[in-house]
Amino acid sequence: MRKILIIGSGKSTSYLLKYLLDKSVSENLYIIVGDLNIENVKNLIGNHQNAKAIVLDVFNETNRTNAIRNADVVISMLPARFHIEVAKDCILYNKHMVTASYVSPEMQALNEDAKAKGIILMNEIGVDPGIDHMSAMQVLDRIRDNGGKIILFESFTGGLVAPESDNNLWNYKFTWNPRNVVIAGQGGAAKFLQEGTYKYIPYNRLFRRTEFLDIDNFGRFEVYANRDSLKYQSVYKLDNVKTLYRGTMRRVGFSRAWNIFVTLGMTDDSYTIDDSENMSYRDFINAFLPYSPSDSVELKLRHALKIDQDDIVWDKLVELDIFNPDKQVILKKATPAQILQKILMDSWALAQHDKDMIVMYHKFGYELHGKKHQIDANMAVLGKDQTYTAMAKTVGLPVAIAAIAILNGKITTPGVQIPITKEIYEPILKELENFGIIFNEKEIPYLGYNPLNN
Amino acid sequence: MRKILIIGSGKSTSYLLKYLLDKSVSENLYIIVGDLNIENVKNLIGNHQNAKAIVLDVFNETNRTNAIRNADVVISMLPARFHIEVAKDCILYNKHMVTASYVSPEMQALNEDAKAKGIILMNEIGVDPGIDHMSAMQVLDRIRDNGGKIILFESFTGGLVAPESDNNLWNYKFTWNPRNVVIAGQGGAAKFLQEGTYKYIPYNRLFRRTEFLDIDNFGRFEVYANRDSLKYQSVYKLDNVKTLYRGTMRRVGFSRAWNIFVTLGMTDDSYTIDDSENMSYRDFINAFLPYSPSDSVELKLRHALKIDQDDIVWDKLVELDIFNPDKQVILKKATPAQILQKILMDSWALAQHDKDMIVMYHKFGYELHGKKHQIDANMAVLGKDQTYTAMAKTVGLPVAIAAIAILNGKITTPGVQIPITKEIYEPILKELENFGIIFNEKEIPYLGYNPLNN
Repeated sequence: MRKILIIGSGKSTSYLLKYLLDKSVSENLYIIVGDLNIENVKNLIGNHQNAKAIVLDVFNETNRTNAIRNADVVISMLPARFHIEVAKDCILYNKHMVTASYVSPEMQALNEDAKAKGIILMNEIGVDPGIDHMSAMQVLDRIRDNGGKIILFESFTGGLVAPESDNNLWNYKFTWNPRNVVIAGQGGAAKFLQEGTYKYIPYNRLFRRTEFLDIDNFGRFEVYANRDSLKYQSVYKLDNVKTLYRGTMRRVGFSRAWNIFVTLGMTDDSYTIDDSENMSYRDFINAFLPYSPSDSVELKLRHALKIDQDDIVWDKLVELDIFNPDKQVILKKATPAQILQKILMDSWALAQHDKDMIVMYHKFGYELHGKKHQIDANMAVLGKDQTYTAMAKTVGLPVAIAAIAILNGKITTPGVQIPITKEIYEPILKELENFGIIFNEKEIPYLGYNPLNN
Repeated sequence: MRKILIIGSGKSTSYLLKYLLDKSVSENLYIIVGDLNIENVKNLIGNHQNAKAIVLDVFNETNRTNAIRNADVVISMLPARFHIEVAKDCILYNKHMVTASYVSPEMQALNEDAKAKGIILMNEIGVDPGIDHMSAMQVLDRIRDNGGKIILFESFTGGLVAPESDNNLWNYKFTWNPRNVVIAGQGGAAKFLQEGTYKYIPYNRLFRRTEFLDIDNFGRFEVYANRDSLKYQSVYKLDNVKTLYRGTMRRVGFSRAWNIFVTLGMTDDSYTIDDSENMSYRDFINAFLPYSPSDSVELKLRHALKIDQDDIVWDKLVELDIFNPDKQVILKKATPAQILQKILMDSWALAQHDKDMIVMYHKFGYELHGKKHQIDANMAVLGKDQTYTAMAKTVGLPVAIAAIAILNGKITTPGVQIPITKEIYEPILKELENFGIIFNEKEIPYLGYNPLNN
């Protein structure tokens, strides 16, 4: 039997493992899941004969290398910073490796060694990054193969709550790492290309420069810009594109309300508040407003941000109970971002039967035979429950499919890879369709940003 | 004769040197000014017998140590980061030293060595830091000596254009380092104490949380908060104070207009714009606004920031000529802050006969015999011309006076010092009065932030 070692069992393990188990007989697979805590994995495996869970400490070299030497392909689901030792072992012992994480500089540095050994180190093959690469490249390659010239590419992804579980005013719940949501957009101005010119949005404007998108049957979404829309410009062969914009999808109205936290400084993660443990939620809000012996925190906030009494953003704040003087922050020496995350967790944690949703939206503008065209392609995937989430599905399935494709010699190009070539994206996207991960494409008039183009 | 070595001849040398030359006969002084470029200093010295200029390369150890060994006291007017080698030599050769710069951690680390040798390393004895320390401590000590308990301390300084040269809509010109003005407030939230609670202002709100101050005969000013109002809390013995707030003074309306640049991201110094050299001023503004094939940069900016057509901030922008499509940025790979600085230099550079102004304002709130009181103290100093500026006067005179006081044994406490003790501030403030650097004090009802206190 061909052995697949999965190191680390996180939230995405459910579908990853289920897919591999379902294929284990026909594909002759034996799956070993290694983690420090294997209780959850044991439940997922049940009494399946083609899999086992082992206690594995990735920082213990003997432990780690023994497990890797015994495998035919290694899937690392560890946090991104822990992949590198696994990758080095994989090169040493001639094992292919698959991860869903961004290629780190350390990982990229292994490219030549991996190539020399004929080893595939496949990365960025989850949902974002992953399905975004594959679905974008499939359309980009097709347009170019037909003689078209790409002039616009926009790409957006969102991890959201499913419509049936969408029952708060923000139309948002935490379906993945809450911290990433709170600090999203920090660290520098967002940069992108619009009609041939570079555009920059500072953090304090990021959530006020949104655009709208519609997905059939799912309604309207808004997007705010990613930090660096140009990251994959060369990788996607878009060096001559006029518009290049990538962003994050939310339900309409989220960003305008979120911007209140940004503006007041409540998302700052760069300093700690000394006496945070003794603060109430109300004290926390008040720390970002001027002192007054008489005016209420509510009125000071309304005045500072000029919020009318009938503005829905106000109801969104009230829904979070941020003005409560009796709820305590409790966290010691916490940053504003950490405190805000705690407050949001009270309201935005998924309830037991809540389902999540992954949405993705690409726009492709191109010239063909002297005319401008546009293709919009989008996808929406719903979670089944809190184990079989849309996030686990869209991250775990591509990883699993890639691992088998590598074992079967369908993916063969060695080195540090991301899924942007036909060899990789074609079989994987095809298989994903069997699981309802399908992009709906439509030709629309080319809009760009310029009505004169029409 | 007693030899004073001045290393570095910057903008503050004029008054520093004039004061020492005027005292050179009565105090038996010989002044040596060392710098790489000594043309300007030669003009200032003229044919005075008690002074000379020497070419001195502070990075040349022989050059530097020879000059220091030959002096009785050393004044370093170098940029702050270059003081440390001079300070080490001063300890080695038993010379006292005076600087107007903040105490760096490296400087502080020399404290024990300096003490062991009985050497005074006097720092922060310019205007801000310097006169602010001395004038604040004089009143704080007096209140405490009389049995008062300090409950509020606020302190503000501004380098501005003198009223007679104040002829633009911003009521501002660059009288010191323009770069510091453009990036002021960046690097983290401003933190201060108001009525016993910590308050935080993020950069994007800093210029919208101003307060007003009035100085007799000079009219109204506004202040925005410094990054860290609490820096001198312990040094000033204000650990139990309820309100502690330090800030920067501008003319009213400056900050609201400045906030436009902050909001759009034009003060960002953390990334460079690739094609900045080919940009016009108009292109630069447009880089921070959404693309439109038809809408003007002007309307996009008005809309983004909701600026009414009759709002004076608009005239302030127009006055800077930022919408000019023919003026070129020219700077290569410049940061937004660098480009903005260049644009502002066109309008805010001092003209030949412009004069500058230094203003300072302290508020002291205290309890005495069960009652609350407040003392306000303020100072305004006007420049004479572009050599004998208010900045040069308020930086150079305290340095010069301190150097002579050290020579005369009036200041004796060894180690790394800042001017917060009576030994230092009393003689210096007294002498400064002879040069019109005078604080006007008045008792006013204690206001605090709480009308119920009255």
